[in-house]
This record gives sequence, structure tokens and C-alpha cells, in this order.
Amino acid sequence: MSFDVLQEKIRAMRNPTVAGLDARISYVPEHIRREAYDQFGEGLKGACEAIYLFNTALIDALCDIVPAVKPQSAYYENLGWQGMEILERTIRYARDKGMFVIADVKRGDIGTTAAAYAEGWLSGTEIGGETFRTFDADCVTLNAYMGSDSVSPFLEAARKEDKCVFILVKTSNDSACELQDMVAGDRLVYQVMGDLAERLGEGHEGKYGFTDVGAVTGATYPSDIQSLRKRLPHTFFLVPGYGAQGGTAEDVRYAFNEYGHGAIVNASRSIMCAWQKAGTDGWDFADRAREAALAMRDDICRCVTIV
Amino acid sequence: MSFDVLQEKIRAMRNPTVAGLDARISYVPEHIRREAYDQFGEGLKGACEAIYLFNTALIDALCDIVPAVKPQSAYYENLGWQGMEILERTIRYARDKGMFVIADVKRGDIGTTAAAYAEGWLSGTEIGGETFRTFDADCVTLNAYMGSDSVSPFLEAARKEDKCVFILVKTSNDSACELQDMVAGDRLVYQVMGDLAERLGEGHEGKYGFTDVGAVTGATYPSDIQSLRKRLPHTFFLVPGYGAQGGTAEDVRYAFNEYGHGAIVNASRSIMCAWQKAGTDGWDFADRAREAALAMRDDICRCVTIV
Repeated sequence: MSFDVLQEKIRAMRNPTVAGLDARISYVPEHIRREAYDQFGEGLKGACEAIYLFNTALIDALCDIVPAVKPQSAYYENLGWQGMEILERTIRYARDKGMFVIADVKRGDIGTTAAAYAEGWLSGTEIGGETFRTFDADCVTLNAYMGSDSVSPFLEAARKEDKCVFILVKTSNDSACELQDMVAGDRLVYQVMGDLAERLGEGHEGKYGFTDVGAVTGATYPSDIQSLRKRLPHTFFLVPGYGAQGGTAEDVRYAFNEYGHGAIVNASRSIMCAWQKAGTDGWDFADRAREAALAMRDDICRCVTIV
Repeated sequence: MSFDVLQEKIRAMRNPTVAGLDARISYVPEHIRREAYDQFGEGLKGACEAIYLFNTALIDALCDIVPAVKPQSAYYENLGWQGMEILERTIRYARDKGMFVIADVKRGDIGTTAAAYAEGWLSGTEIGGETFRTFDADCVTLNAYMGSDSVSPFLEAARKEDKCVFILVKTSNDSACELQDMVAGDRLVYQVMGDLAERLGEGHEGKYGFTDVGAVTGATYPSDIQSLRKRLPHTFFLVPGYGAQGGTAEDVRYAFNEYGHGAIVNASRSIMCAWQKAGTDGWDFADRAREAALAMRDDICRCVTIV
């Protein structure tokens, strides 16, 4: 079970956090930009190579203290195919360094289309009898608005590879409530999605009691996390919204069970852009990122004891 | 308004249909595959170039009779960055041939992440004061489970460029009903999404009365389409599910208003794979695709009169 692997890494490092890799070119310190632009020009290729250098340096700075990274596909798609090329390389680099990679793609489609997505992100594509792995993450995020049909093909691919998925349940943004908090029958919409995650995982519980179908539950709605933790005892949580969006360590503690298991908290900009917050010229961005990651770990571990 | 442009094209060709460009390598006739594999090897690069040859030949065969194409991102992502490279080229080729391009990406995210997606797919990314356009479609499909926050950044980008979006409302798959048909307050979930489309478009009606926020409404639920057409008079519909999934011309007629406006019906495999259905060796795939597209047009125009 892939969430077992993640939970083991979290326990080993005593750190239930994941670092987002969502760089815009403006987050990359100038000396790196200049290096890449000098070699590849100030265009898409130069920007991509600058971000790749930034990503790999962040991974090097974090891989012994942070168990996972979460690249957000949008920040690579906006650079076209060349962005997707460094996304492939970034995922490979992080996995080679032993990090668990959550591809934050929020895909949602059905049948053969979902199967094609799953090939790209999880299981590889067959051509002439050979399997070609491209984005090859450990885990993806999914949007199940279209129903269980939009999750099963991913799950099939994930199970062949001992990988896993997260379904959007309650997201961390302001307008999340517009649909997600509506009363649907005797439940709320986000509970319907949460129950779907719990149901689709049934029978696939791993060593720590969690299945291969996780749920995204935003730190900005702590009372919902608290009730979801009780409602979905076998569902691993990915918790966005800590830090910049307002979620605190006190809020995210509810995502964990009594052993401090079953959740991982994301932070992106606070780690990537720690050098900007410190007001430096960026030469020290890797040290600043590491410091920010350690501070986040310590902040959360004040409230969560991992057994 | 970009749906005006689409509606004009539909009227000029008397054809309210869009051809999917969702090729798996197995849909590509052997002579094309052989050509590409001979030059680029039987791997990702060879498969991508074979699909690109197939796509461009289909576009050539269809561009004077079909107003739009809809590439589905999944069938390019499963080939990694090289797949994304031919997706860029395919979109550019189709637009150069005068076709309206709907990128079927079903993205759904918030804030700067949604803005990054919108840059990639609609408005271009700025680097060093220059705007670089990559996937550059006319229109994208969106999943608004996360709420209006997940649509507005796309809409902002679309409006700068005179482009448009479709929001998933009622999809064509079997499990669509699991969430979409739930009673949410005094409405059904898919009506909530439909009302969101109508509301976000308000004040942006074009020449034909439709806004720049469309809705995806599956052909497989004709009575829902009928009620949605009344409920959302200013919302342009993208209708999947015709043909292979069971939707008929009689079903999709309800997506159009009394002037035969406001909807476009998709078919993918029935056009791309017409040569396989005809049992040929594939040399005639372009002619078979054109025949299938004309047959679909005639079938729908039996039931819909476009003023």
C-alpha cells in the first residue's frame, strides 16, 4: 500500500508535511534565472530550465527532512510542452532522492479517457509491447464530480503499481462551500465525496489501517476535518491551506488519528519563497527553504504526536 | 464573444458538431504508424508523430465541413511531454485551418493555480515582458466542484482574449447521477452548476444571446437537457454522448433553442475510427472520417433546423 510507504517516511522523519513545487518564474532567485537565461535565452526554455534548477535545489535541501513533494501541474502546463518536460524530470529527480511524489493534477474524466490519464500519471503507456513511463508519480489528486466512473480507472492503474489517489472532498478555498456544503439528501456534498473515498478503498486497508483512496480536506475548515476524521477512519488526508491561506497547526491536528497517523499537510509558497520573505537576494534560497520546512514541521509537531 | 464566432461557423457550415481528437495509437492506420516508426522509432516519439500525422490528416479532411475540434488532453498526457508537444502543434494546426478549438481539459483549481492553467490554455504566459502562447485553444472545459473561485481566473483570461469556457453540468456517463442528480436544497446538484454558468456569464451575452460561459450537458440524459435549455437560456451547450454512448439526434435536439442555436454535439471515435468500423486497412481513413462526419451532420440536421 502506497500510503503505508508514505506513513513510514513520515514516521521516520517525524514530519507529516509535503512541500509544494509550484514555481512561477518570479519565485526563482535572480542568479538562477540569469544562469538559465544565459544558456537558453529569456523565453520558455530558459524559464523552464531555471525552474528545474530551482526545483532540484529545493529537493536536495529538503529530501532528508521532508517526506514528500507535491508538484502542481498548472505551473508546468503554463509553460507548454517544455514545462511538462521539466515536470517529468522533476518527478523523476524527487523519486530518485527517495521522496514520495503527489502529482496535484485534480483530473476527472471517465472510461478510456480516465484510463489514458492514469497511464500518463501512474502506470505508463504501452507502445509495441513496451511500457513507457512519463510523469510517473506515486499518487495523484482527483476530482470526482463525474462520479465513481471517474475514479475507478485511476484506482485500477494505481493498484497495479502499488500507488494511490486523493479525491477532492472539502477544499481550502473560500468558495468551496458553494457546492461542497450543500445539503444533499441526508448528507453534505463533501460528505458524499468523502464516503465515496471510504467506499472505493474498502478491502484495501494497509498496515496503518488506511486504504489507497485518500481525501483532500482543507485546513481552513477545521471543524469539517474533525468530523471527517471520525467519519472516514480508513481514509488518508491531504491537507492544503496551512500557512498563507490561514490554517494553523491547531486546525490541522484534527486531520490525524490518535496515533498521529493518516494525514499530510501541504505548504508551497512559504517554503519555496522563504528567501523572499526573509528579504534576501536569493543566494540562500535553499537554506531559507530548509529552515521554513523545519519550522513548519516543529509547529505541527507541537500539536501532533506521531507514534 | 467567442461563442458568436463558433455559432457563425456552425451556421455557415450548417453543422452543429465538433470532432474529438482523442487518438490512441491503436486508432492510427498501420501505414501511418509504419511511416512514423521508421523515422522516429517504435516508442513515445514515433507514437506521437504518428498521432500528429493522423490528426492533421483528419483536420484537412474535416475543416471545410466541421466547424470545431475537441482534443482531449488525456490522450496527449499519456504520452508525456512529447504528447503535449504534438497537442500544441495540433491546436495550432486546427486554428490555422480556421477551426474552433475546444481543449477538453476539465481543469478545476483556484487562485494563482487556476490563473496558471488559464495562461497555459487560453491567454499565454509572460516571461521578461513577452507573452508566450503554448496550448492556446479558443475554449476550455472546466470542473467547478471547487466553486466559482475555480472558474473566475479562467474567465478573466478568456475575456481578455475573446475566448470562452464550458463548465461541467450534467455529464454523459453512467455514474454522473451519483453526485450530479442529488437534491441540493431546492435544486439538483447539476442545476446548481448550470445556474453558476448562467450567473457567471451575466452581462456578457453576445450577438446570439449566449454568454462566454457554456455548459457540458450529456446527450444520454435528454430530459435533463430539455429542462436545462429552458433554465439556462443564455448558456451555450457542449453535448457529449452522441453515438457510441447511446445519445441520438432525437435526444440532442433539445440542446438547441428555437432557432437551432446554442449547442454543439461531439463525436470522437465514430469519426476517428470510421475506417476500422468499415473494416478497411486504413488507407482511406480520411475519406471514411469525412463520410462519418457528414452522416452525423445530416442525422442531427434531420432534427434541428439552424436559422
